[in-house]
Amino acid sequence: MKDTTMNGAECLLRTLLANGVDTCFMNPGTSEMQFVAALDRVPEMRAVLCLFEGVCAGAADGYARMTGRPAATLLHLGPGLANGLANFHNARKARSPVLSIVGQHSTQHLLHDAPLTADIEALARPVSGYVRTVERAGDIGKEASAAVEAARTAPGQVATLIVPADFSWSDAGEPGSALPHLPAPCPQAGRIQQAAAVLRSGEPAGLLLGGSALLPEGFEPAAQLAAATGVRVLGNRNGARYGCGGGRVTPPRLPYFPEAAEAALAGLKHLILVECRPPISFFGYPGRRSELAPPDCAMHVLASAEEDGAAALRALAREWGVASAPLALQAPKPDWPQSEALTPDAIGRVLAHLLPEGAIISDETVSSGEAILRHLAPAAAHDLLPVAGGSIGQGLPVAVGAAVACPDRKVIALEADGSAMYTLQSLWTMARERLDVTTVILANRRYRILEIEMRRTGGGAVGPRAGEMIDLTRPEPDWVKLAGGFGVPAVRVTTAGEFIREFGAAVGQPGPRLIEAVLDVSGPS
Amino acid sequence: MKDTTMNGAECLLRTLLANGVDTCFMNPGTSEMQFVAALDRVPEMRAVLCLFEGVCAGAADGYARMTGRPAATLLHLGPGLANGLANFHNARKARSPVLSIVGQHSTQHLLHDAPLTADIEALARPVSGYVRTVERAGDIGKEASAAVEAARTAPGQVATLIVPADFSWSDAGEPGSALPHLPAPCPQAGRIQQAAAVLRSGEPAGLLLGGSALLPEGFEPAAQLAAATGVRVLGNRNGARYGCGGGRVTPPRLPYFPEAAEAALAGLKHLILVECRPPISFFGYPGRRSELAPPDCAMHVLASAEEDGAAALRALAREWGVASAPLALQAPKPDWPQSEALTPDAIGRVLAHLLPEGAIISDETVSSGEAILRHLAPAAAHDLLPVAGGSIGQGLPVAVGAAVACPDRKVIALEADGSAMYTLQSLWTMARERLDVTTVILANRRYRILEIEMRRTGGGAVGPRAGEMIDLTRPEPDWVKLAGGFGVPAVRVTTAGEFIREFGAAVGQPGPRLIEAVLDVSGPS
Repeated sequence: MKDTTMNGAECLLRTLLANGVDTCFMNPGTSEMQFVAALDRVPEMRAVLCLFEGVCAGAADGYARMTGRPAATLLHLGPGLANGLANFHNARKARSPVLSIVGQHSTQHLLHDAPLTADIEALARPVSGYVRTVERAGDIGKEASAAVEAARTAPGQVATLIVPADFSWSDAGEPGSALPHLPAPCPQAGRIQQAAAVLRSGEPAGLLLGGSALLPEGFEPAAQLAAATGVRVLGNRNGARYGCGGGRVTPPRLPYFPEAAEAALAGLKHLILVECRPPISFFGYPGRRSELAPPDCAMHVLASAEEDGAAALRALAREWGVASAPLALQAPKPDWPQSEALTPDAIGRVLAHLLPEGAIISDETVSSGEAILRHLAPAAAHDLLPVAGGSIGQGLPVAVGAAVACPDRKVIALEADGSAMYTLQSLWTMARERLDVTTVILANRRYRILEIEMRRTGGGAVGPRAGEMIDLTRPEPDWVKLAGGFGVPAVRVTTAGEFIREFGAAVGQPGPRLIEAVLDVSGPS
Repeated sequence: MKDTTMNGAECLLRTLLANGVDTCFMNPGTSEMQFVAALDRVPEMRAVLCLFEGVCAGAADGYARMTGRPAATLLHLGPGLANGLANFHNARKARSPVLSIVGQHSTQHLLHDAPLTADIEALARPVSGYVRTVERAGDIGKEASAAVEAARTAPGQVATLIVPADFSWSDAGEPGSALPHLPAPCPQAGRIQQAAAVLRSGEPAGLLLGGSALLPEGFEPAAQLAAATGVRVLGNRNGARYGCGGGRVTPPRLPYFPEAAEAALAGLKHLILVECRPPISFFGYPGRRSELAPPDCAMHVLASAEEDGAAALRALAREWGVASAPLALQAPKPDWPQSEALTPDAIGRVLAHLLPEGAIISDETVSSGEAILRHLAPAAAHDLLPVAGGSIGQGLPVAVGAAVACPDRKVIALEADGSAMYTLQSLWTMARERLDVTTVILANRRYRILEIEMRRTGGGAVGPRAGEMIDLTRPEPDWVKLAGGFGVPAVRVTTAGEFIREFGAAVGQPGPRLIEAVLDVSGPS
């Protein structure tokens, strides 16, 4: 018997559940109240309140990176969506599946120029692979199914569904059906053979891995190929998720600065691309090319971003006749810090020892990152969630989403003090949901990366007025107070010994904590 | 002699100064480093660092509302702009002149799909009346002059100028010239005569004021017309700036909820519009029209938003033969609070007595607003900066901008605890710039307005799971800690007596302070 009493909001929630979307990060407003009301009739939908929309968007990105499945976000009209765009940009670059639901004014009200009226489709399009506005209440089920399918289109994208308020309060009929989730296709055999021919040529060749190839099922056959052929294996610096540690031979990430990245690629005559594009620098600089590979290096696509790169690498390993069994990394753990100076290097050494098995690192360390992460190859098995789109304010929200997705794993948010500021409201959701996240604020009290970039872009030495624009000391943000204001227990540490003690305590107990690590900036790192 | 050593960044700053734009709210990144470096060569440009882009955008809105002139914002690529869009939306609805400068990748780098690449023009368009990307370094001066002129086009708009990084570091020649600022035109005489005929008709008529008509030069002739003709004078609720208090007869603002707004307009056969559109409700509701005026009420435009409504009102007063000299308001100040219950009503009564002469109120009180503001007509002369576009997170940034614009006036930010959370990074800029802002957080620990709106949109009683989505008690944000974390001295008050003491202390000394007013929510208001 057809249930004619279900309104559009309930119909949408039930359609999402039928399609495996059972988590919604939300910051609703008046136009979305019917969705909120429907939560009491659809208890299977987990609703997570965030106090700023950028937290919702980044959390959905983190959730998708860890599960491969879309979460929903529910945001309020055009301005609510606008506040989520920066982290939807990151999700787009990470190729994360996300279902972005945006409330719209009721259709009658939209005829007038109400204060909150804005062009929602136009705002959504730069970050979305799919944008639809529901045109009648009876279509909600069908449209919601189609939007989830769009979000899951390999490798994943942001799909935006705009729902006028009157459709959410009108009768909408039956929920949409469950649509199948199509896996990414394996590349055609010709691509495998072409890559094999490159490896056989004897010319210097590299494999640049992205997407699914950054997980063990992808990088393990790549490591076997490297052992057998000498091919140089590297990872896309801005991939969505790296499987790391645990004695596995993870591909090194291309460095941030172009000189170091060029050195990593120097001498290559061929670069085989797996779910990534030819490598380029993060920014352009005066007098430098953007391309990082040598000018005479030929590019070969083994798998596009829409294809299954890990399967392609396994096929290539078979074609070459090597096993794809894991290789064991022989590197020992680094020494513990040898002094009390709290440097990024010291923090990396501590993490190498204390990172719990199965940890998830949300990394937004910016200038401190390389000195920390280079120590983590011999650490316990963990996942690293790097900066994907470069939009600052990713790290804390991604940590929220990863923790919601993986409640049995410890999440470590490694955050620069400048970057953490953009979406610090994430801390409140960590407290409310009792998420198992240890946030480490790397406090150098500067936009340190900009000091470096000013020289690199030809701005010269930093003058006094310019220096004010990259300085965070007048006043120094107090992260212990900020975290406490959001209900997250916090502590400040200034020595390596204090960091060892406090990080050890934080990973030894569940729930959110924050450590403000005041970096020693007197030394070289 | 032509100075051929000036790069594009310096050329742009000098062009802005030549056109009267001497303040820039910024959150720069690598692509904007040349502008930051140029600050040391162009010391006349005041640069104000904000830790989140929404603060920059809202500050520029507040600055424009108080000065009538554009400030510049400087944001980093598409994602940096994205974080500013919600407050640019508010600036658009307030018709504030704002020059939004956005850095772009260098032209060579833009050919590649770098992580931070996004369609900046597409992101800018929904909030901007003017969008241009500089096409060659030699055009920077000319383009910057044109963008300032566009921002100032009456009544004002957001003009977005996108500057590729290589043009900022290349030679750019001479700065652009100073272009004239054209005032808004006075409406044609026929409009004045039509409005006069409506007043003469004897049928019930109203005057709805917006834009410049909300300042004394507009509402004083309107008040004289009301005294002479009985015309009902009302103000656009979402106007950019109201001149209030000081014994002046300020027009009452249309109420937020449609029933009350309809009552305010009931019986009118004519509504004369001055720099505003026919009144509509903020949201649409089931079974209600969006229009607020009676169905048989004829609309007459005295002045469009692009015209000088205050001049039109003065002309109408002359046409009618009444003086436009100010009328004196006879209402006495309200009683002081009669109990210790800290309600919005009590806060309004205190403000009526303690508001300093010339204060500027940035109002984002949401559910508490009407109970507070209704007491302020007999207060000292002040300006009220209301919600214009409804995008939450306006209040603190607008207070920042107003305080930068008017360093000799006390700024009071009246903030709901839910709304303040979106752009709380504003507090840091208040501390750094020692801005004379007293922030009052009206802490009811709820998205109280949504509780009301859920019933109004037909969602029914708030169930337990829905209630979680509008509840801010688990955990309660601690605004004293949050303010302290940003370097702003803060105190929590829970009684009317404490509020009187602390608000009095705050207005009695310069510099930023925050008062967390924990509202008594047991009573009716």
